[in-house]
Amino acid sequence: MNNHAPVPVGVLGASGYVGQELLRLLTRHPGASVVFATAESAAGEWTDGHQLVRAEDAPLERAEIVLAALPPGVSARYVPGIRARGCRVVDLSADFRLSPDAVYGLTEFCRPAVAGAQLVANPGCYPTAALLALLPLARAGLIDAAREVVIDAASGVTGAGRSPRRDLLFAEVAEDYRAYAAGNAHRHLAELRASLARDGGFDGDLVFTPHLLPVKRGILETIHVPLTRVLDRTTAEGLYDMAYDGEPCVSVMHGALPSLRDVVYRNRVALGVAAVADVRRPRLTVIAAIDNLVKGAAGQAVQNMNVMLGLSETMGLVC
Amino acid sequence: MNNHAPVPVGVLGASGYVGQELLRLLTRHPGASVVFATAESAAGEWTDGHQLVRAEDAPLERAEIVLAALPPGVSARYVPGIRARGCRVVDLSADFRLSPDAVYGLTEFCRPAVAGAQLVANPGCYPTAALLALLPLARAGLIDAAREVVIDAASGVTGAGRSPRRDLLFAEVAEDYRAYAAGNAHRHLAELRASLARDGGFDGDLVFTPHLLPVKRGILETIHVPLTRVLDRTTAEGLYDMAYDGEPCVSVMHGALPSLRDVVYRNRVALGVAAVADVRRPRLTVIAAIDNLVKGAAGQAVQNMNVMLGLSETMGLVC
Amino acid sequence: MNNHAPVPVGVLGASGYVGQELLRLLTRHPGASVVFATAESAAGEWTDGHQLVRAEDAPLERAEIVLAALPPGVSARYVPGIRARGCRVVDLSADFRLSPDAVYGLTEFCRPAVAGAQLVANPGCYPTAALLALLPLARAGLIDAAREVVIDAASGVTGAGRSPRRDLLFAEVAEDYRAYAAGNAHRHLAELRASLARDGGFDGDLVFTPHLLPVKRGILETIHVPLTRVLDRTTAEGLYDMAYDGEPCVSVMHGALPSLRDVVYRNRVALGVAAVADVRRPRLTVIAAIDNLVKGAAGQAVQNMNVMLGLSETMGLVC
Amino acid sequence: MNNHAPVPVGVLGASGYVGQELLRLLTRHPGASVVFATAESAAGEWTDGHQLVRAEDAPLERAEIVLAALPPGVSARYVPGIRARGCRVVDLSADFRLSPDAVYGLTEFCRPAVAGAQLVANPGCYPTAALLALLPLARAGLIDAAREVVIDAASGVTGAGRSPRRDLLFAEVAEDYRAYAAGNAHRHLAELRASLARDGGFDGDLVFTPHLLPVKRGILETIHVPLTRVLDRTTAEGLYDMAYDGEPCVSVMHGALPSLRDVVYRNRVALGVAAVADVRRPRLTVIAAIDNLVKGAAGQAVQNMNVMLGLSETMGLVC
Repeated sequence: MNNHAPVPVGVLGASGYVGQELLRLLTRHPGASVVFATAESAAGEWTDGHQLVRAEDAPLERAEIVLAALPPGVSARYVPGIRARGCRVVDLSADFRLSPDAVYGLTEFCRPAVAGAQLVANPGCYPTAALLALLPLARAGLIDAAREVVIDAASGVTGAGRSPRRDLLFAEVAEDYRAYAAGNAHRHLAELRASLARDGGFDGDLVFTPHLLPVKRGILETIHVPLTRVLDRTTAEGLYDMAYDGEPCVSVMHGALPSLRDVVYRNRVALGVAAVADVRRPRLTVIAAIDNLVKGAAGQAVQNMNVMLGLSETMGLVC
Repeated sequence: MNNHAPVPVGVLGASGYVGQELLRLLTRHPGASVVFATAESAAGEWTDGHQLVRAEDAPLERAEIVLAALPPGVSARYVPGIRARGCRVVDLSADFRLSPDAVYGLTEFCRPAVAGAQLVANPGCYPTAALLALLPLARAGLIDAAREVVIDAASGVTGAGRSPRRDLLFAEVAEDYRAYAAGNAHRHLAELRASLARDGGFDGDLVFTPHLLPVKRGILETIHVPLTRVLDRTTAEGLYDMAYDGEPCVSVMHGALPSLRDVVYRNRVALGVAAVADVRRPRLTVIAAIDNLVKGAAGQAVQNMNVMLGLSETMGLVC
Repeated sequence: MNNHAPVPVGVLGASGYVGQELLRLLTRHPGASVVFATAESAAGEWTDGHQLVRAEDAPLERAEIVLAALPPGVSARYVPGIRARGCRVVDLSADFRLSPDAVYGLTEFCRPAVAGAQLVANPGCYPTAALLALLPLARAGLIDAAREVVIDAASGVTGAGRSPRRDLLFAEVAEDYRAYAAGNAHRHLAELRASLARDGGFDGDLVFTPHLLPVKRGILETIHVPLTRVLDRTTAEGLYDMAYDGEPCVSVMHGALPSLRDVVYRNRVALGVAAVADVRRPRLTVIAAIDNLVKGAAGQAVQNMNVMLGLSETMGLVC
Repeated sequence: MNNHAPVPVGVLGASGYVGQELLRLLTRHPGASVVFATAESAAGEWTDGHQLVRAEDAPLERAEIVLAALPPGVSARYVPGIRARGCRVVDLSADFRLSPDAVYGLTEFCRPAVAGAQLVANPGCYPTAALLALLPLARAGLIDAAREVVIDAASGVTGAGRSPRRDLLFAEVAEDYRAYAAGNAHRHLAELRASLARDGGFDGDLVFTPHLLPVKRGILETIHVPLTRVLDRTTAEGLYDMAYDGEPCVSVMHGALPSLRDVVYRNRVALGVAAVADVRRPRLTVIAAIDNLVKGAAGQAVQNMNVMLGLSETMGLVC
């Protein structure tokens, strides 16, 4: 598939759900070779053929690029040292997403900047789905900023991480469903607003409410968009078709709505739209689905890595 | 607990999920005695100690009151004949919910009319949760009718009935989540609008989107309410406290949001609120949870039956 | 239902899954009144209308009987002090199940001793199901002690307790299934062997393998019994019918096998049998299902409490 | 990866769960190209980039090999006609598994015969796991034929097919677990016995009990083996290590037991063993896990196809 030697890649933080997914993807990636994978309490264990080492024991000098899936706050401490060695980084934490030193890695909208970046801040899972749904409408000036955009998002449990917590036990989560941060209290919101303003020119109000689903992986967002003018379903679908023409990781559905099944284990966002009947002012409901661990984290990180390295953008990914 | 002979009750349509729940509740009800329970293809089978008979073989004359959980359209054909015999009816289908011949059975708001009714139309599951959340705000004139109320509702699979359908197979639903009728396409919407106008004086726009959850029972609705004036969380909670003072089947949470766990197997709605930060105009997000088979169907029917018969309103129910 | 004042009952260890189930049952029990419910880290929280207090603050003198759902080892320290105050105890831990100071509380087989006991050791969940399946066969001399009885047991996750453990997270357990202690390594086995010998006169070999099911509650045991003589299905069913004639908490199925649905939220064991075709020596497969939190723990404790207090044996229980 | 043109492959029966998995695997297979995929009621629909056609419209002449995932009985009618055209076939139904005209496709044990076969009968999911666990012991003469081998098997719901059935609805299966064919009533048993005799020289008694798990995919079998002599755990593991030395699709665990997580989406059997303590005669418990749709069906069919075509045995498979 490629005629070059595999690029040596390091993984920081390989024992969480995102880190495990990174290893799963990189192990099957024909253009990459994992040279180290780190963990702290799980150091010594084996995952997908790689023995985890402590970060302080990682042979950083052997990696051409590092993918970091560290806990919030930890990346901010580690990454500058890695960059100082001349190593490129895709950081999957939130630590650099609002920083001017990093390129925001929403691949479909930031591809040229990603290609030349030394440090890519991989987007959060919730913002990835919301932005891929909203940016085409925002850029077309179709969102009525005088009314609020309402986003109800539901995420599988891997989105909450792998630390032992009573509220994430099977016996607590199974057969349950709940909102866990109503009233715009979620930490991803600043990232979402920043990209909507910068990449979409939109600064209207948002109402974002995340929910916890009794599934392992997947995010589905139901996004209620007030419009500046009437848009029927097929016109809206056509707008998305055009915005994402040729994009390998975006699937625009026609006359159907996406479900988690359409996206899990794939580096894909699926988008579907519905015109809203029986309301006085124009509206659209957009449904966006991603796998929180793939397009929402590890898959998009590999997609960005491919762009940075000049490899085929979807190498090693199932879209 | 009561000194009277149990009231003879008939159940029409006892093989579906709602009918089974009716039998479960009535069998343990100290003031009621099931005199027949009907089914068509399942006639002859036993459920909770009752042998199901075909509707045409039901000894209607032995029942003082009939609870009907028949498929849509079937109730419209059966119920008039039952009423003609002088038998009182709680109908759980949608067939009479918009009819002037029936009393709408949202118990907390229609208690006096239910007490004297010959025919009660038991509310739908989605409207029950939405109305119990919205009516106190509507009656207080707090909903800004110039902006849309957005309701994202998620229901367990029993809400879709017990007929064999490929899309409801375990292997299709488990680990999945999807909207199934975006754009105000759901048949419950007319009922919701009618009660909001009649019982709450509200005629603004609604956007209603139901989703299918991979759980057996429970509905959670995330209801986004544009307000006419600022309402902080504790004030909103106080308003609900007052509206539902003394109501045994309403649980107003303080500083917390309900989840399905709080309501399953109970004849209860749980309500929680969140003020919405960082928006220019006042808003409230209300979360309402019910068990779709209990407060959303069979439990509320028993609650209405109790009111009609002058029994303690919660007899036979766990609230 | 009863003309006496409710008996004052104390609950030790009310924050785990078993303790919560005890509170749920006792709160609805017409003959009992909870006078305290203890917890350590959860002290101060409210459950089912009771505020949890630390064990050292519990008004032990107010309770006529105490139900203790404490962690293993903790009961052994607490219970002697409680008994010294003259208070009767049903202990749900394993600490007294092999002790000569306690009556083993498998109600159906130990009823007279339970009635007069000061200390009842409530059986473990796995042994309860296995013993109710095996004792009638053992007592009839039907088990061939020259061959091994093989028990494959599958339990819902609440059986593993409520402490935060990574291996019990939803994202680890959902869509998974595994044996967790093959080779007779489970700690319940001594209890099972002791009762089979004492109550059934059986001392043949057992092979016991517990598995973890992705469900919240329920145990199903598939029990392979080598027989001393041929027993067809209906004869075996008849034997169980006779052994359990009049027993309110045992359901013998005819021509069908039990599933978890038949028993969850009920204080019931369901038993079903299958003759084994195409084998040279006589065999029977028995399936036993219980709710691990009800007949396997809190429900059987209440059943024993009822017997100890001279109340109706199933008061407060759904069988 | 290979320098030859992809082999043209036809898929008969592509709308069921096994057929969908075949398409998923073949679509990503670098050495194969799907030239048709058939379905009856789903004809016209698209799956993984292929439009399904009715079997009578399939261009059989374009395929070099056909993989048939047809309902039982249907294969027996179709396959002879396909073979008459000179086309090689891997049949995934049970129709040819006991036929002398077909090679039994348990790849690890029948590789040379598969390589030259015109018709391969792909093994059933339950027998695949059981045989890979038992054959090494049987061939070493270690199974005591005077006692019974007891197999308790648990399967995910996709094993029951994709036809709409009430008992397979989410609301029936979730939170449930049950045996569905105790007493050696399962149709796979003859196939298992035949291979144990032919490939392992074992003709002792088996007791096989399948159970339905509330998961989508995966089979776990707990296999209780009476031994002719004592075998400790590490010796048993060593025996499996030797038997499967170099086998890419068999994972022998050391000091651990497999779970479904170890095998889903992989063409792998995972095997783990436990010596049984406290029994008078030697015994071993073996746990075998596979993905019923992969190593138990579509994956093993592709593995066999690769062997038949002289391709790398694991091409297109994740093991």
